[in-house]
Amino acid sequence: MFESARLPQKMTKKDFKKLEPKLREALLEAQLPMVEKQPFSTLILVDGLDGAGKGEAVARLYGWMDARHLVCNAYGEPMDEARLRPPLWRYWRDLPAKGDTAIVFGSWYQFVLRDWIYKKIDDDAFDKALTRIRRFEEMLANEDVLILKFWFYLPKKVQEERLEHIQKKQAARHVLADWAALKHHKKASEAGEKIILETSKGHAPWFVIPSQDPEYRDSALAQTVAGAMKLKLEDGEPHSVAAPPIVGGLKRETAVDAIDLTETLEKEEYHALRDKYQQQLSELSDRKSLSKTGVVLVFQGNDAAGKGGAIRRVIRPLDPRIYKVHPISAPTDEEKARPYLWRFWRRVPRRGHFAIFDRSWYERVLVERVEGFAGHDDWLRAYNEINEFEQELTDFGFIVQKFWLAISEEEQLRRFKAREETAYKQHKITDEDWRNRLKWDQYAIAAGDMIDRTSTHYAPWTLVSSEDKRHARIKVLKTICDRLEEVL
Amino acid sequence: MFESARLPQKMTKKDFKKLEPKLREALLEAQLPMVEKQPFSTLILVDGLDGAGKGEAVARLYGWMDARHLVCNAYGEPMDEARLRPPLWRYWRDLPAKGDTAIVFGSWYQFVLRDWIYKKIDDDAFDKALTRIRRFEEMLANEDVLILKFWFYLPKKVQEERLEHIQKKQAARHVLADWAALKHHKKASEAGEKIILETSKGHAPWFVIPSQDPEYRDSALAQTVAGAMKLKLEDGEPHSVAAPPIVGGLKRETAVDAIDLTETLEKEEYHALRDKYQQQLSELSDRKSLSKTGVVLVFQGNDAAGKGGAIRRVIRPLDPRIYKVHPISAPTDEEKARPYLWRFWRRVPRRGHFAIFDRSWYERVLVERVEGFAGHDDWLRAYNEINEFEQELTDFGFIVQKFWLAISEEEQLRRFKAREETAYKQHKITDEDWRNRLKWDQYAIAAGDMIDRTSTHYAPWTLVSSEDKRHARIKVLKTICDRLEEVL
Repeated sequence: MFESARLPQKMTKKDFKKLEPKLREALLEAQLPMVEKQPFSTLILVDGLDGAGKGEAVARLYGWMDARHLVCNAYGEPMDEARLRPPLWRYWRDLPAKGDTAIVFGSWYQFVLRDWIYKKIDDDAFDKALTRIRRFEEMLANEDVLILKFWFYLPKKVQEERLEHIQKKQAARHVLADWAALKHHKKASEAGEKIILETSKGHAPWFVIPSQDPEYRDSALAQTVAGAMKLKLEDGEPHSVAAPPIVGGLKRETAVDAIDLTETLEKEEYHALRDKYQQQLSELSDRKSLSKTGVVLVFQGNDAAGKGGAIRRVIRPLDPRIYKVHPISAPTDEEKARPYLWRFWRRVPRRGHFAIFDRSWYERVLVERVEGFAGHDDWLRAYNEINEFEQELTDFGFIVQKFWLAISEEEQLRRFKAREETAYKQHKITDEDWRNRLKWDQYAIAAGDMIDRTSTHYAPWTLVSSEDKRHARIKVLKTICDRLEEVL
Repeated sequence: MFESARLPQKMTKKDFKKLEPKLREALLEAQLPMVEKQPFSTLILVDGLDGAGKGEAVARLYGWMDARHLVCNAYGEPMDEARLRPPLWRYWRDLPAKGDTAIVFGSWYQFVLRDWIYKKIDDDAFDKALTRIRRFEEMLANEDVLILKFWFYLPKKVQEERLEHIQKKQAARHVLADWAALKHHKKASEAGEKIILETSKGHAPWFVIPSQDPEYRDSALAQTVAGAMKLKLEDGEPHSVAAPPIVGGLKRETAVDAIDLTETLEKEEYHALRDKYQQQLSELSDRKSLSKTGVVLVFQGNDAAGKGGAIRRVIRPLDPRIYKVHPISAPTDEEKARPYLWRFWRRVPRRGHFAIFDRSWYERVLVERVEGFAGHDDWLRAYNEINEFEQELTDFGFIVQKFWLAISEEEQLRRFKAREETAYKQHKITDEDWRNRLKWDQYAIAAGDMIDRTSTHYAPWTLVSSEDKRHARIKVLKTICDRLEEVL
């Protein structure tokens, strides 16, 4: 969930100076027609970790927009009138009119989050509260309210430093609460992941804002707000603002860009480790407890990253009667006539078996997104649908492990050329591969979004540098062995 | 929920003979273009009470449609292949291709329902299961699957007779399970209400089928299937099949039509009872425990049914500092600029207070539906939104009591004329009233749907015959007193 936000996303003051006027312009270009035509109102929810600078970010956004049609509502513990009425009452009371924008500081998520962290409510009550929030937001969206939700994220260490710094500068009373929050970094992030997974909808999306660098943070916020307003103005529908166009030009690095591609492994060590893990995998697959689970392995990655080679090393120690490799290419006619997940449900293994997917349902948010085979709304909803699908599998006791095999653009070129030059490899390279390569950046963004939105505790992604194939194969084998060892 | 289905909806064999060819024609007129153009597939879920004749109904539907593109899939306890895979697997496996229709006998609801009735899962697990079903169906709908869900309903006494009859005819083994189900009529109906409230969506609606009369039952099923398919063919969107057009011409009686309008009350008895209940209400409103709750009273009914008069009798014994009457007419500009429930949220009372609504949020599904002020999808989603709104209130400890005041068409005419003839009453009758009167039947259907879809255990409707005003006023006063007595 926070894979990309954990990166030290930064920008120089100089770059920020250049970007700022563009962002301000983009914001006003979206806000002013909204004010004039009044097709909808906008709610900007500001949530996330303490110390991330939510207040600063809001102050800057406030300064950049037209303040006559902008209000900032902050909610703490309910007082007076509000205490005597149902909890949602004060949020209803303050709903902006069409054309207006309200920044909501301390939204309807804050109490659910706090109560769960402090164990005042259990998991079931937490889920229930999220269900009701989801319906509330769905209704607002249907009634012409644009809902944008921002989760300000800091890695734990940075949060620590930030709070220390604040403590030095400010009165102790205010910071006390923040220090308490710090103790709960892990729980707050866990809750955040859950909130984002469960309540991010096309019509009320969450955006994670990497908050280590204030300039980057505020630019990301402004850019997203402007882009989403613009999209809503053009589209008008209550859905599909979850992937706003980039206005202003802020570039973002994703988890996929940050994979360390320098790792290598010597031949000798490789052989030793390969034999060791294949031996271990063989033993694990013989265990009786395997009959109570099923194993689903997913391989995705850049073209020519070596998915096939890695898969061959995994299946070698397995009894052919208990595994099946599913190479996924274009859907058949039968498959096209049904919901896209049908072709993967029909390949779900029995208990005690392995299903290994060489490409998978993730093509929906990779090639189908980039090439436009799936509509904007369709690939957007796929993130949630895929998470649901994998939850059905893991709830039944299956193990789901996903691998992203990464290589650099240069390495891909080398491998493509090698394929063309070697007779028995020529079938592995097509015109399509070359065409896809031209869209390297788009594929990288799609892969980054995919990792962020489908990393769950029940079905994790492992990012594997495949620049050195030996390193990749060992990392894959080891990850599978560790995971099985843990479960069996 | 089952208010209208409880009525002994019947049709003569003769009427059925006349209707049957029309229904068959309507079914084929919808099915054949679907088969030809393949824009979507259809799932028909058959659920509800044992003994309601689900099997017979399906057999008849099967006979009326084109069987080449129709399959009936029955699911009992999972066996073999299915047992080794996640529960949804077999439903996925059997999903029909576009153009085809599958009748699902023993759907994904059956195990949730059974486990809850037999207390294998608690309320939270039940809610959770419904949440996941909702997402599953949402995804199918987005992927061009038309989902129609039918709940076959019988009143308890009729179910009893039916099962006795079946027992005489059939082997005991099969019926045993049915008898067990009978013991759980109340729980099954409760679960049914919950399932229908929580999972009826525009794109995957529930329809309650009154099943006392086989011919009526099968006609209602066929008519709804044909109408929904027709609507989907024309519209194409994944939503809005929840109110299919009437094809074939089967008329239905609703709970509102069945109100007994003959009840009267003599003047003397009226005075005695009025004084008694007003005295009781006065005492109840003085209780300290009132400060822990709030009271929301809703008055709806036919024009000139006497809402104002009933309300005046309710407020007479109350301290003016603790109540407020809200006459609801056209929304203000401020209100129009916000979601429609905003104007009711701003009138939510404080704890310890009464808010009395002379007309209310229900206008959304009455006048706004009939007059077309709200779009089809908008008034359809309002049922759920209203239920949610009232749940927010009752979860906070408020009491919500709703009254429908009914008069006959003839009585309304008498009262309209009397208003025109009496100088001080002339302001109460307008051209609009006369116009609305012309749409009596449409308003009756809207009112019936409203009662069925917004009757909840936490915010019940009381249907009041207002043909005799004295009877109506006493029934209103008594209902309020009983409800307050129970809670305070």
